[in-house]
Amino acid sequence: MFRAKLLEMETRGTFIVVMGAKDAHRLGVRSSDRLMLKAKDLESIAILNIASEFPKGAIGIFNEVRDKLGLADGDSIEVTPAKRPESLSFIREKIMGERLTPWKIEMIVEDVVERHLSDIELTSFVTALQINGTSMEEVEALSRAMVKSGRSIDFKRQPILDKHSIGGVPGDKTTLLVVPIVAAAGYTIPKSSSRAITSPAGTADRVEPLCPVELRIEEIVEVVEKVNACMVWGGALDLAPADDLFIRVEYPLSIDPLLLPSIISKKRAMGSTHVVVDIPTGRGAKINTVAQAQQLATDFIELGSRLGMRIECALTEGEQPVGNTVGPVLEAREALQALMGSGPPDLIDKATSLAGILFEMMGEKNGKEKAQNILMSGKAEEKLRQIIEAQGGNPEVKPEELTVGQKWIDIEAEIDGRVLWINNRAIAQMARTAGAPGDKGAGLLLRAKMGDPVKKGEPLFRIYSDSVQRLDAAADVAKELEPMTVGTRIGERMVIKHMKAVTPLGPEFVLER
Amino acid sequence: MFRAKLLEMETRGTFIVVMGAKDAHRLGVRSSDRLMLKAKDLESIAILNIASEFPKGAIGIFNEVRDKLGLADGDSIEVTPAKRPESLSFIREKIMGERLTPWKIEMIVEDVVERHLSDIELTSFVTALQINGTSMEEVEALSRAMVKSGRSIDFKRQPILDKHSIGGVPGDKTTLLVVPIVAAAGYTIPKSSSRAITSPAGTADRVEPLCPVELRIEEIVEVVEKVNACMVWGGALDLAPADDLFIRVEYPLSIDPLLLPSIISKKRAMGSTHVVVDIPTGRGAKINTVAQAQQLATDFIELGSRLGMRIECALTEGEQPVGNTVGPVLEAREALQALMGSGPPDLIDKATSLAGILFEMMGEKNGKEKAQNILMSGKAEEKLRQIIEAQGGNPEVKPEELTVGQKWIDIEAEIDGRVLWINNRAIAQMARTAGAPGDKGAGLLLRAKMGDPVKKGEPLFRIYSDSVQRLDAAADVAKELEPMTVGTRIGERMVIKHMKAVTPLGPEFVLER
Repeated sequence: MFRAKLLEMETRGTFIVVMGAKDAHRLGVRSSDRLMLKAKDLESIAILNIASEFPKGAIGIFNEVRDKLGLADGDSIEVTPAKRPESLSFIREKIMGERLTPWKIEMIVEDVVERHLSDIELTSFVTALQINGTSMEEVEALSRAMVKSGRSIDFKRQPILDKHSIGGVPGDKTTLLVVPIVAAAGYTIPKSSSRAITSPAGTADRVEPLCPVELRIEEIVEVVEKVNACMVWGGALDLAPADDLFIRVEYPLSIDPLLLPSIISKKRAMGSTHVVVDIPTGRGAKINTVAQAQQLATDFIELGSRLGMRIECALTEGEQPVGNTVGPVLEAREALQALMGSGPPDLIDKATSLAGILFEMMGEKNGKEKAQNILMSGKAEEKLRQIIEAQGGNPEVKPEELTVGQKWIDIEAEIDGRVLWINNRAIAQMARTAGAPGDKGAGLLLRAKMGDPVKKGEPLFRIYSDSVQRLDAAADVAKELEPMTVGTRIGERMVIKHMKAVTPLGPEFVLER
Repeated sequence: MFRAKLLEMETRGTFIVVMGAKDAHRLGVRSSDRLMLKAKDLESIAILNIASEFPKGAIGIFNEVRDKLGLADGDSIEVTPAKRPESLSFIREKIMGERLTPWKIEMIVEDVVERHLSDIELTSFVTALQINGTSMEEVEALSRAMVKSGRSIDFKRQPILDKHSIGGVPGDKTTLLVVPIVAAAGYTIPKSSSRAITSPAGTADRVEPLCPVELRIEEIVEVVEKVNACMVWGGALDLAPADDLFIRVEYPLSIDPLLLPSIISKKRAMGSTHVVVDIPTGRGAKINTVAQAQQLATDFIELGSRLGMRIECALTEGEQPVGNTVGPVLEAREALQALMGSGPPDLIDKATSLAGILFEMMGEKNGKEKAQNILMSGKAEEKLRQIIEAQGGNPEVKPEELTVGQKWIDIEAEIDGRVLWINNRAIAQMARTAGAPGDKGAGLLLRAKMGDPVKKGEPLFRIYSDSVQRLDAAADVAKELEPMTVGTRIGERMVIKHMKAVTPLGPEFVLER
């Protein structure tokens, strides 16, 4: 018999208890072993953590176990060793290079979502997926298991269109144009997006200056009922709860083995039937070569067909930001302006191309032209304002009412010439240093893009922030990283990077979902 | 500025702080990011954990950070994002399949020992080592780094002999004979051993019924000065502190990628110059085939020569327990009896063979014969008693004074025949179920070994325990697992295992160091 010592803390849903080393030795158990706890009529399995110093005969109880067993401090608990979850054997099989069958994958994902696995066990699974790779059967099983372990939305209509970017390019506000264009054509396109993980803004962050994005499922259904579209944050909808748990592991390691099932499971949970997937490709993007992008596209298409979804992919230019702005409010403003008739050419081209692909997937001809017409006619702007209103924002919002950071600094060209190269990662890092996405008005306004002529002393870009300190820090990053390379002609500066010594990797990785 | 909220808990040495999700979003940081904390004149880097519910403006402080910054509840702390450790980039390289150079490995091991890495980061490293394998250069670098990050013992003499078993066979008390035999010949053999991890007894557990094994380094030096030998627990000597941290990860996953550096770093820290490594081989052992054992032996030998140690290996019979006993006190008693002249033949043969190899490594001829002579002469018993006395035990101890479990039950043969097979894992599981190693008197006494004739109704083995419940549980395990297969002739029972359905793996893995 042990006595409960309440620790008054949570452990992210996992059932964990703490015991001193001597008590554990006496019981013949070690850290990570499972214990069966019995208190009065209630029982629970928990994962053991061993503390070097812990009162003899006491068992440390986090809030999760306390609530399940209804424990008070000092209560008696019967403690016996218990078996480990079966899924642990399957994780080990994956470490050993085996291909996992669907029911094994389902059991693992279930145990992940129900918090039956420790951080150590979960991490080893994700690492093994990264190193040993996943077969298409495994990706399918992971997608299905991730859908099954979460909630789904039934919009009670078909077809459901959708658009997704694998991310990696700063300033990519294409969704804010594609959704209204497609919906204005009469199609249903309920878009759920993520917030930034490592970027200066996720699509949900970009929409938020226009209207609330944290809607409940019933509210989303109502919005889509009304205006055929929505642009909401998917994070709290519980569509694929396993994903957040996987991301907790992937993020510190800068790995992304669950890219495909993570994206597709969320589309499936939204009931999507036709999806265009945007794969930005280029030296500064997540996918660097066209060959890699083609492989990924092929996987998306096959996975879609296995799950009963039609998927087409667009490999897009990913070497520089999309449009001229980076940061939540700056991007919302640029998207609104674009829908009102004055957008940058790359953003317009990308949005109408992607919308056009969706139109052609629905059997229409000249999809891109149709998208352009809808955009130019003002119908897409009208649709955006309907969406804003339906989600609880101000449908009359004007671009100039979206207030950007009150402080700013211009970074100027040091010579006459052309912009030869824009470093996406440096752009993202500057915007984040300036405060994006937490400081919504922070970010960048680019005055020139690749190929544009610039003159010495003219601004290359402006950094916005609400904080002078962060503005200075962002300017320091600008000096250090040279986000824009200016030269008189291509080929004039042949050195890409000068490596002075064995240098550890920097924060080169972009995790977006 | 945040205010400290003391959590009154340890986190195993790691510097961790807790923050609410909203505060973290505002600061632009995520779980696993590093934060720089400043309070008055002191500062510290810590790893961020994000809690879904946590008071706004508060930062949760575990004892490690509290002590480093001298914090009281409610103190003000300045919190800014900080860079992640460089070693994290190297862990990622290993995940990506790169070979790591020695300085990168050293930096990782240093950060492991100094607790700069989270469980997620440490686990991914160990998993990557398991899956991608380690080159001999990496194994060497890991060994050196593990030595460097711990303490070493200088016995101020040479040569230093040593013996090590990779483990996996229950009842292997060979060390308790080899050490006194070798020391009785005038050589220095300071033996540090581990306690059981997944087995019913580690060598330190086996020695403990005879004398204390938890000695401090100065005491060990003194004992060796006096009697040329010791048999102590290595766990608290801080010889290779990284190892305990790696084992925390390896144990739940049942993987063992650090076997070689773990063993060899500890030998190096003890200053060993000549080591015989025992590799039990067989179906029920850790190493199943002679080919695998040869590969491992080759690696041990090369690694030794890289580290300036002479290593030879013995591939030994590992298909059944060594001797007739399993469990701390039962094994201590059997070893003492063997040194007093009445030991089982397999134990005697194994011990004199290994001691003989060490003698021949020192240039002597007919090593095994010499070992046998020392054993028969009583000099080894005398040496054991000297060691017991030097370590603070009773040198006059008699076998019958070593008291085994007060309750026992005999498991009987159900037919006449021979013992065709003994299942090592079932033996180990029974002994652990009976209470070993926590209950020192618990364990097994085998009445027959492989090939021995048995009669229906005669005992095959006796289970000892101090607890009737555990005794019954062990008897249940005996019924379930059939630890000894009895038949009239080899080949009469051809089915090894009957698989009825896809079955998750059981606890098949033996982790011993």
